[in-house]
Amino acid sequence: MGDSLDVERYLHDHIPITRALGLTVVWADTGGVELAAPLAPNINHRSTVFGGSAISVAILAAWTLVHLWTLELDRLGRYRVVISRTAMDYLAPIQGDFSASCTPPSDAFDRFTRALERRRRGAVDLTARVTTGGLEAASFSGSYVAMRLDDDEAS
Amino acid sequence: MGDSLDVERYLHDHIPITRALGLTVVWADTGGVELAAPLAPNINHRSTVFGGSAISVAILAAWTLVHLWTLELDRLGRYRVVISRTAMDYLAPIQGDFSASCTPPSDAFDRFTRALERRRRGAVDLTARVTTGGLEAASFSGSYVAMRLDDDEAS
Repeated sequence: MGDSLDVERYLHDHIPITRALGLTVVWADTGGVELAAPLAPNINHRSTVFGGSAISVAILAAWTLVHLWTLELDRLGRYRVVISRTAMDYLAPIQGDFSASCTPPSDAFDRFTRALERRRRGAVDLTARVTTGGLEAASFSGSYVAMRLDDDEAS
Repeated sequence: MGDSLDVERYLHDHIPITRALGLTVVWADTGGVELAAPLAPNINHRSTVFGGSAISVAILAAWTLVHLWTLELDRLGRYRVVISRTAMDYLAPIQGDFSASCTPPSDAFDRFTRALERRRRGAVDLTARVTTGGLEAASFSGSYVAMRLDDDEAS
Protein backbone atom coordinates (compact mmCIF):
# COMPACT_ATOMS: atom_id res chain seq x y z
CA MET A 1 0.00 0.00 0.00
CA GLY A 2 2.85 2.30 -0.93
CA ASP A 3 1.26 4.73 -3.36
CA SER A 4 -1.96 6.59 -4.02
CA LEU A 5 -3.40 4.03 -6.43
CA ASP A 6 -2.85 1.23 -3.92
CA VAL A 7 -4.61 3.27 -1.24
CA GLU A 8 -7.50 4.02 -3.59
CA ARG A 9 -7.88 0.36 -4.49
CA TYR A 10 -7.80 -0.59 -0.80
CA LEU A 11 -10.54 1.89 0.06
CA HIS A 12 -12.74 0.93 -2.90
CA ASP A 13 -12.35 -2.79 -2.14
CA HIS A 14 -12.81 -2.68 1.64
CA ILE A 15 -15.21 0.23 2.13
CA PRO A 16 -17.44 -0.04 -0.95
CA ILE A 17 -19.48 3.09 -0.24
CA THR A 18 -16.30 4.98 -1.27
CA ARG A 19 -17.07 3.95 -4.86
CA ALA A 20 -20.54 5.49 -4.57
CA LEU A 21 -18.94 8.66 -3.19
CA GLY A 22 -16.64 8.78 -6.25
CA LEU A 23 -13.67 8.93 -3.90
CA THR A 24 -10.19 9.35 -5.36
CA VAL A 25 -6.81 9.65 -3.65
CA VAL A 26 -4.92 12.84 -4.52
CA TRP A 27 -1.97 11.89 -2.39
CA ALA A 28 -1.40 9.56 0.53
CA ASP A 29 1.73 8.94 2.52
CA THR A 30 2.71 9.04 6.17
CA GLY A 31 3.20 12.82 5.93
CA GLY A 32 -0.36 13.59 4.91
CA VAL A 33 -3.41 12.47 2.95
CA GLU A 34 -5.73 14.25 0.53
CA LEU A 35 -8.88 12.58 -0.78
CA ALA A 36 -11.24 14.08 -3.36
CA ALA A 37 -14.84 13.53 -4.48
CA PRO A 38 -17.04 15.05 -7.18
CA LEU A 39 -20.24 16.99 -6.57
CA ALA A 40 -22.57 14.87 -8.73
CA PRO A 41 -22.93 11.66 -6.66
CA ASN A 42 -22.93 13.66 -3.43
CA ILE A 43 -25.42 16.33 -4.38
CA ASN A 44 -28.29 17.29 -2.09
CA HIS A 45 -31.66 19.02 -2.32
CA ARG A 46 -29.90 22.41 -2.62
CA SER A 47 -27.47 21.34 -5.36
CA THR A 48 -24.60 21.47 -2.90
CA VAL A 49 -22.67 18.61 -1.28
CA PHE A 50 -24.60 16.56 1.29
CA GLY A 51 -23.07 17.05 4.76
CA GLY A 52 -22.80 13.29 5.31
CA SER A 53 -20.66 12.92 2.18
CA ALA A 54 -18.39 15.80 3.21
CA ILE A 55 -17.73 14.31 6.64
CA SER A 56 -17.31 10.81 5.17
CA VAL A 57 -14.43 12.03 3.00
CA ALA A 58 -12.87 13.84 5.99
CA ILE A 59 -13.23 10.74 8.21
CA LEU A 60 -11.50 8.68 5.51
CA ALA A 61 -8.66 11.18 4.99
CA ALA A 62 -7.69 11.08 8.66
CA TRP A 63 -8.35 7.32 8.93
CA THR A 64 -6.09 6.65 5.92
CA LEU A 65 -3.28 8.63 7.52
CA VAL A 66 -3.49 6.60 10.74
CA HIS A 67 -3.76 3.39 8.73
CA LEU A 68 -0.57 4.28 6.80
CA TRP A 69 1.19 5.03 10.09
CA THR A 70 0.35 1.59 11.45
CA LEU A 71 1.54 -0.05 8.23
CA GLU A 72 4.83 1.81 8.58
CA LEU A 73 5.21 0.12 11.94
CA ASP A 74 3.90 -3.31 10.99
CA ARG A 75 3.91 -4.29 7.33
CA LEU A 76 1.70 -7.30 8.13
CA GLY A 77 -1.24 -5.00 8.86
CA ARG A 78 -1.96 -6.33 12.33
CA TYR A 79 -3.27 -3.01 13.62
CA ARG A 80 -6.94 -2.23 13.63
CA VAL A 81 -7.77 1.50 13.35
CA VAL A 82 -11.18 2.69 14.49
CA ILE A 83 -12.76 6.06 14.94
CA SER A 84 -13.99 7.02 18.40
CA ARG A 85 -15.23 10.58 18.00
CA THR A 86 -15.78 13.20 15.29
CA ALA A 87 -16.77 16.83 15.12
CA MET A 88 -17.35 18.98 12.07
CA ASP A 89 -18.12 22.65 11.54
CA TYR A 90 -19.79 23.35 8.23
CA LEU A 91 -18.51 26.79 7.23
CA ALA A 92 -19.90 27.25 3.72
CA PRO A 93 -21.97 25.30 1.19
CA ILE A 94 -19.87 23.12 -1.13
CA GLN A 95 -20.97 23.95 -4.64
CA GLY A 96 -18.56 21.80 -6.64
CA ASP A 97 -15.99 19.04 -6.42
CA PHE A 98 -14.26 18.97 -3.07
CA SER A 99 -11.44 17.39 -1.13
CA ALA A 100 -10.41 16.67 2.45
CA SER A 101 -6.80 16.90 3.53
CA CYS A 102 -5.20 15.77 6.76
CA THR A 103 -1.71 16.93 7.66
CA PRO A 104 -0.67 15.95 11.17
CA PRO A 105 1.04 18.13 13.78
CA SER A 106 4.81 17.68 13.50
CA ASP A 107 5.32 15.26 16.38
CA ALA A 108 2.04 13.32 16.17
CA PHE A 109 3.43 10.38 14.20
CA ASP A 110 6.36 9.87 16.59
CA ARG A 111 4.18 10.01 19.71
CA PHE A 112 1.59 7.72 18.23
CA THR A 113 4.02 5.07 17.04
CA ARG A 114 5.89 5.13 20.37
CA ALA A 115 2.60 4.42 22.14
CA LEU A 116 1.92 1.53 19.76
CA GLU A 117 5.38 0.07 20.27
CA ARG A 118 5.05 0.21 24.05
CA ARG A 119 1.45 -0.79 24.57
CA ARG A 120 0.23 -2.16 21.18
CA ARG A 121 -2.45 0.49 21.45
CA GLY A 122 -2.49 4.22 20.78
CA ALA A 123 -4.87 7.11 20.29
CA VAL A 124 -4.48 10.23 18.20
CA ASP A 125 -6.52 13.36 17.52
CA LEU A 126 -6.33 14.71 13.98
CA THR A 127 -7.91 17.57 12.09
CA ALA A 128 -8.83 17.75 8.42
CA ARG A 129 -9.80 20.62 6.16
CA VAL A 130 -12.54 20.24 3.59
CA THR A 131 -12.00 22.60 0.67
CA THR A 132 -13.70 23.40 -2.61
CA GLY A 133 -12.28 25.66 -5.29
CA GLY A 134 -9.46 26.65 -2.95
CA LEU A 135 -11.82 27.77 -0.17
CA GLU A 136 -12.23 26.11 3.22
CA ALA A 137 -15.78 24.76 3.47
CA ALA A 138 -15.64 22.66 6.64
CA SER A 139 -13.36 21.95 9.54
CA PHE A 140 -13.16 18.38 10.87
CA SER A 141 -11.61 16.84 13.95
CA GLY A 142 -11.51 13.16 14.75
CA SER A 143 -10.14 10.85 17.41
CA TYR A 144 -8.78 7.51 16.27
CA VAL A 145 -7.63 4.45 18.18
CA ALA A 146 -5.29 1.77 16.84
CA MET A 147 -4.99 -1.63 18.48
CA ARG A 148 -2.64 -4.41 17.53
CA LEU A 149 -4.50 -7.65 17.10
CA ASP A 150 -3.01 -10.93 18.20
CA ASP A 151 -1.73 -12.86 15.22
CA ASP A 152 -4.66 -15.25 15.24
CA GLU A 153 -7.14 -12.37 15.12
CA ALA A 154 -5.52 -10.55 12.21
CA SER A 155 -7.23 -11.10 8.90
CA MET B 1 -44.61 14.71 2.19
CA GLY B 2 -47.07 13.41 4.74
CA ASP B 3 -45.97 9.83 5.24
CA SER B 4 -42.87 7.70 5.43
CA LEU B 5 -42.92 6.63 1.78
CA ASP B 6 -43.15 10.24 0.63
CA VAL B 7 -40.17 11.14 2.84
CA GLU B 8 -38.19 8.19 1.48
CA ARG B 9 -38.93 9.16 -2.10
CA TYR B 10 -37.92 12.76 -1.37
CA LEU B 11 -34.59 11.68 0.13
CA HIS B 12 -33.81 9.20 -2.65
CA ASP B 13 -34.68 11.75 -5.34
CA HIS B 14 -32.94 14.80 -3.87
CA ILE B 15 -29.95 13.28 -2.04
CA PRO B 16 -29.05 10.35 -4.32
CA ILE B 17 -26.27 8.97 -2.09
CA THR B 18 -29.15 7.84 0.19
CA ARG B 19 -29.90 5.15 -2.41
CA ALA B 20 -26.31 3.90 -2.20
CA LEU B 21 -26.63 3.84 1.59
CA GLY B 22 -29.76 1.69 1.23
CA LEU B 23 -31.64 4.21 3.35
CA THR B 24 -35.24 3.50 4.33
CA VAL B 25 -37.67 5.49 6.45
CA VAL B 26 -39.03 3.57 9.45
CA TRP B 27 -41.19 6.45 10.56
CA ALA B 28 -41.18 10.19 9.98
CA ASP B 29 -43.47 12.83 11.35
CA THR B 30 -43.08 16.07 13.28
CA GLY B 31 -42.83 14.09 16.53
CA GLY B 32 -39.76 12.10 15.52
CA VAL B 33 -37.88 10.37 12.72
CA GLU B 34 -36.23 6.98 12.43
CA LEU B 35 -34.17 6.04 9.39
CA ALA B 36 -32.59 2.63 8.78
CA ALA B 37 -29.81 1.22 6.61
CA PRO B 38 -28.44 -2.28 6.02
CA LEU B 39 -24.89 -3.39 6.80
CA ALA B 40 -23.94 -4.65 3.31
CA PRO B 41 -23.57 -1.39 1.32
CA ASN B 42 -22.03 0.35 4.33
CA ILE B 43 -19.51 -2.30 5.33
CA ASN B 44 -15.90 -1.43 6.09
CA HIS B 45 -12.54 -3.21 6.28
CA ARG B 46 -13.55 -4.76 9.62
CA SER B 47 -16.95 -6.02 8.44
CA THR B 48 -18.70 -3.41 10.55
CA VAL B 49 -20.49 -0.23 9.47
CA PHE B 50 -18.25 2.56 8.11
CA GLY B 51 -18.34 5.56 10.48
CA GLY B 52 -19.18 7.93 7.63
CA SER B 53 -22.30 5.92 6.79
CA ALA B 54 -23.42 5.85 10.41
CA ILE B 55 -23.14 9.61 10.80
CA SER B 56 -24.76 10.18 7.39
CA VAL B 57 -27.89 8.35 8.54
CA ALA B 58 -27.90 10.30 11.82
CA ILE B 59 -27.45 13.63 9.98
CA LEU B 60 -30.40 12.73 7.74
CA ALA B 61 -32.65 11.65 10.62
CA ALA B 62 -32.29 15.00 12.37
CA TRP B 63 -32.38 16.94 9.09
CA THR B 64 -35.62 15.21 8.08
CA LEU B 65 -37.23 16.16 11.38
CA VAL B 66 -36.34 19.84 10.92
CA HIS B 67 -37.48 19.67 7.29
CA LEU B 68 -40.87 18.27 8.37
CA TRP B 69 -41.17 21.03 10.96
CA THR B 70 -40.65 23.70 8.31
CA LEU B 71 -43.21 22.04 6.03
CA GLU B 72 -45.71 22.09 8.88
CA LEU B 73 -45.22 25.85 8.96
CA ASP B 74 -45.09 26.47 5.24
CA ARG B 75 -46.57 23.88 2.91
CA LEU B 76 -44.91 25.57 -0.06
CA GLY B 77 -41.49 24.46 1.14
CA ARG B 78 -39.89 27.88 1.20
CA TYR B 79 -37.55 27.07 4.07
CA ARG B 80 -34.03 25.92 3.44
CA VAL B 81 -32.59 23.67 6.17
CA VAL B 82 -28.83 23.34 6.46
CA ILE B 83 -26.51 21.73 8.95
CA SER B 84 -23.99 23.91 10.74
CA ARG B 85 -22.25 21.55 13.16
CA THR B 86 -22.15 17.87 14.06
CA ALA B 87 -20.53 15.72 16.72
CA MET B 88 -20.62 11.97 17.08
CA ASP B 89 -19.33 9.55 19.70
CA TYR B 90 -18.81 6.04 18.38
CA LEU B 91 -19.62 3.77 21.30
CA ALA B 92 -19.48 0.29 19.78
CA PRO B 93 -18.87 -1.31 16.39
CA ILE B 94 -22.04 -1.75 14.32
CA GLN B 95 -22.09 -5.36 13.19
CA GLY B 96 -25.43 -5.48 11.42
CA ASP B 97 -28.29 -3.39 10.06
CA PHE B 98 -28.71 -0.16 11.97
CA SER B 99 -30.94 2.85 12.41
CA ALA B 100 -30.79 6.43 13.63
CA SER B 101 -33.67 7.98 15.51
CA CYS B 102 -34.24 11.59 16.43
CA THR B 103 -36.88 12.50 18.99
CA PRO B 104 -36.82 16.18 19.97
CA PRO B 105 -37.01 17.66 23.46
CA SER B 106 -40.65 18.42 24.27
CA ASP B 107 -40.62 22.17 23.59
CA ALA B 108 -38.11 22.24 20.74
CA PHE B 109 -40.68 22.32 17.94
CA ASP B 110 -42.63 25.21 19.49
CA ARG B 111 -39.53 27.31 20.13
CA PHE B 112 -38.16 26.65 16.70
CA THR B 113 -41.35 27.46 14.82
CA ARG B 114 -41.88 30.63 16.88
CA ALA B 115 -38.41 31.79 15.85
CA LEU B 116 -39.21 31.07 12.20
CA GLU B 117 -42.51 32.94 12.38
CA ARG B 118 -40.86 35.99 13.93
CA ARG B 119 -37.60 36.17 12.04
CA ARG B 120 -37.95 33.76 9.08
CA ARG B 121 -34.84 32.10 10.48
CA GLY B 122 -34.27 29.69 13.34
CA ALA B 123 -31.64 27.36 14.76
CA VAL B 124 -32.08 24.14 16.67
CA ASP B 125 -29.79 21.59 18.34
CA LEU B 126 -30.91 17.98 18.10
CA THR B 127 -29.55 14.64 19.19
CA ALA B 128 -29.94 11.27 17.53
CA ARG B 129 -29.24 7.73 18.69
CA VAL B 130 -27.71 5.19 16.37
CA THR B 131 -28.72 1.67 17.36
CA THR B 132 -28.14 -1.85 16.08
CA GLY B 133 -29.90 -4.93 17.40
CA GLY B 134 -31.46 -2.85 20.16
CA LEU B 135 -28.10 -1.56 21.44
CA GLU B 136 -26.90 2.04 21.28
CA ALA B 137 -23.85 2.17 19.01
CA ALA B 138 -23.32 5.91 18.57
CA SER B 139 -24.53 9.19 19.95
CA PHE B 140 -25.00 12.12 17.55
CA SER B 141 -25.66 15.80 18.05
CA GLY B 142 -26.24 18.32 15.29
CA SER B 143 -27.06 22.00 14.91
CA TYR B 144 -29.39 22.95 12.09
CA VAL B 145 -30.42 26.32 10.68
CA ALA B 146 -33.60 26.99 8.70
CA MET B 147 -34.02 30.12 6.59
CA ARG B 148 -37.07 31.18 4.68
CA LEU B 149 -36.20 32.04 1.13
CA ASP B 150 -37.87 34.89 -0.67
CA ASP B 151 -40.45 33.59 -3.07
CA ASP B 152 -38.23 34.18 -6.09
CA GLU B 153 -35.42 32.12 -4.54
CA ALA B 154 -37.53 29.11 -3.64
CA SER B 155 -37.21 26.21 -6.04
